Amino acid sequence: MPPPTATLSLPSSSSPSLFPLSSFPSSTKPQIGFCPTTRPRLRLPNFSSLPKLISPPRKLTPLFAVSIEKETVISERPDTFLREADGQDDASVRSRFQRMILEVQDSVCAALEAVDGAGKFKEDAWTRPGGGGGISRVLQDGAVFEKAGVNISVVYGVMPPEAYRAAKASAIDQKPGPVPFFAAGVSSVLHPKNPFAPTLHFNYRYFETDAPKDAPGAPRQWWFGGGTDFTPAYIFEEDVKHFHSIQKKACDKFDPSFYPRFKKWCDDYFYIKHRGERRGLGGIFFDDLNDYDQEMLLSFATECANSVVPAYIPIIEKRKDTPFNESQKAWQQLRRGRYVEFNLVYDRGTTFGLKTGGRIESILVSLPLYARWEYDHKPEEGSEEWKLLDACINPKEWI
Amino acid sequence: MPPPTATLSLPSSSSPSLFPLSSFPSSTKPQIGFCPTTRPRLRLPNFSSLPKLISPPRKLTPLFAVSIEKETVISERPDTFLREADGQDDASVRSRFQRMILEVQDSVCAALEAVDGAGKFKEDAWTRPGGGGGISRVLQDGAVFEKAGVNISVVYGVMPPEAYRAAKASAIDQKPGPVPFFAAGVSSVLHPKNPFAPTLHFNYRYFETDAPKDAPGAPRQWWFGGGTDFTPAYIFEEDVKHFHSIQKKACDKFDPSFYPRFKKWCDDYFYIKHRGERRGLGGIFFDDLNDYDQEMLLSFATECANSVVPAYIPIIEKRKDTPFNESQKAWQQLRRGRYVEFNLVYDRGTTFGLKTGGRIESILVSLPLYARWEYDHKPEEGSEEWKLLDACINPKEWI
Repeated sequence: MPPPTATLSLPSSSSPSLFPLSSFPSSTKPQIGFCPTTRPRLRLPNFSSLPKLISPPRKLTPLFAVSIEKETVISERPDTFLREADGQDDASVRSRFQRMILEVQDSVCAALEAVDGAGKFKEDAWTRPGGGGGISRVLQDGAVFEKAGVNISVVYGVMPPEAYRAAKASAIDQKPGPVPFFAAGVSSVLHPKNPFAPTLHFNYRYFETDAPKDAPGAPRQWWFGGGTDFTPAYIFEEDVKHFHSIQKKACDKFDPSFYPRFKKWCDDYFYIKHRGERRGLGGIFFDDLNDYDQEMLLSFATECANSVVPAYIPIIEKRKDTPFNESQKAWQQLRRGRYVEFNLVYDRGTTFGLKTGGRIESILVSLPLYARWEYDHKPEEGSEEWKLLDACINPKEWI
Repeated sequence: MPPPTATLSLPSSSSPSLFPLSSFPSSTKPQIGFCPTTRPRLRLPNFSSLPKLISPPRKLTPLFAVSIEKETVISERPDTFLREADGQDDASVRSRFQRMILEVQDSVCAALEAVDGAGKFKEDAWTRPGGGGGISRVLQDGAVFEKAGVNISVVYGVMPPEAYRAAKASAIDQKPGPVPFFAAGVSSVLHPKNPFAPTLHFNYRYFETDAPKDAPGAPRQWWFGGGTDFTPAYIFEEDVKHFHSIQKKACDKFDPSFYPRFKKWCDDYFYIKHRGERRGLGGIFFDDLNDYDQEMLLSFATECANSVVPAYIPIIEKRKDTPFNESQKAWQQLRRGRYVEFNLVYDRGTTFGLKTGGRIESILVSLPLYARWEYDHKPEEGSEEWKLLDACINPKEWI
């Protein structure tokens, strides 16, 4: 097995929010990956671009350098992005998770093309010299969708030992070396044209570490993260209930505590702090999930990802041709402005990706084709626009 | 004189980028102001919302709490936002700078309404209990301008002693207490409708500290900051030359080194790192300016602010009615997407303002009415769009 050379711990350069920073276990998640072997593009954390809410830069010691191995665009997608050694075990969680995300990318894109009727996905694929790679698929300016991106990515990297130690403090007495990790995920943002048809985002990801090189006996770690969230510009209660019901059904198959817990997590995560409002009407979100049976969680993530089509497509079918006027379109674009604010200001995957030099077009495919900012816009109390805003400010239990 | 109670060190809640973090002297600028007297809304730095490029939060000690005193909307603008004691000395720099920014707000708004012909500015004014206040003026959806904001603001606050000590380390041996400061500025972003008419931003600001309370003999500090920058979607060389010539003329009246130095500073500041391109074609930008005669710098800032109308209005007159097609409009909106990326991801005033709870509508008035993001858009080599992009990637000397 070759040494780990892909060095972006998160997010990969492959997709919007594919590997947000929260996707490492415990409270001491690795902030910055580093590469002890090859450093094709060494980048130190750029403090000057950070909002300086914290003590001055000179007081901070950058623990790890950031480097991202440049991707190589390929003309034909390979069967696998796994390293040879990994690919030989079809039954491994790595293999099965990769198979799952590739299938989900296919099935979601097929369903989206079918409902769009006109637009086709454009595919970009790439690999990295040290292993891993990704496939971005984007449908732009279709009949139904303004912009739809469905990306998958596989990353081999190394994480700072602190992250691993924190996860298993009791198991290791001496300071371990850098920890090789594997990450894979599918991530998607779908922006329809019709203001009555909701935006959808989903992302499911799996992480696995090897034992630290100088502590070969130490245990491996693994965890799952992800979620699906729903961002309409107008509330159709039957749509919101349908969407949340499918999320709950997927959760309930595995644990009755999942839906209430991950629903709240979602409301808390997709929060635009400076507005005091959420970007949309939530769904489910979870991270660092490793305190259940691994097979069960693989099935759960698969179930969630496979729930995207039944949760979303019927709503799009119903709303894609609803007549609308200019002011309803303007309201949709104003809400898309909020979406941009969340993604550029708060979303950890996006902000980290931008600052570490990931594949910008894949990261920012999450942004809508059009967004709008009106000064001091306040919907009239009691209006349909007001009701949506109210539900973003005061999250509701929909089912 | 009442104790300082306005506690937002920067930026105020008054305007886009009015008081960016860089507007404090020395390399140890205060990151967070705090209020030793009243704490109407105490907020601790919110680490969870920061992109975690640096060592983990648990390793950081928040040095200062952030608090912002809530503004009170007023129906009639006062003659002055200065505290009574300040207002009695018409010859003070505080008084004269406030007079200047109020006059600039009036003259710029009058010139913009005249060139627009249809749109009128809407005015919002506010004060703060501890002194200071602001006036936001916004013209939206006029005949010529999509959105034009011209804001002024006056802030009384306190800054962490470290900033002051760093500025005058030799003058103080003992650790001083919190340092009261005064800040005032004018800030504006102008987005015309016609894709051949450029966006303009300008901001001029003045800071002054009192002596620390427990070191009454220590010297006061003051400094100026600001700039004017030019963001067209298409290059008309005569327009860019005209704009830069006016900036150079304003600079040359004071010091021949100013234009080359501040032109480069502008190119460096308005840089969208993740794109490797500037948001526009620059202009001038300076900060922490205190190593010249204070009267000279007051005159210089006044000259720069008064140069906005002659630098910009003739270009708008010339381009506002140029015929354009849909694809030229789409390119303008795509460039406005880049403007949004800069402001939300990099602009220090904006990002700090959002995270500390400033007046959101005033901070985000800098965002365009419409922005657009296309996946993997690459202008055809040699096209007019390509020429603009090339000049954003490789800044030129225009005069």
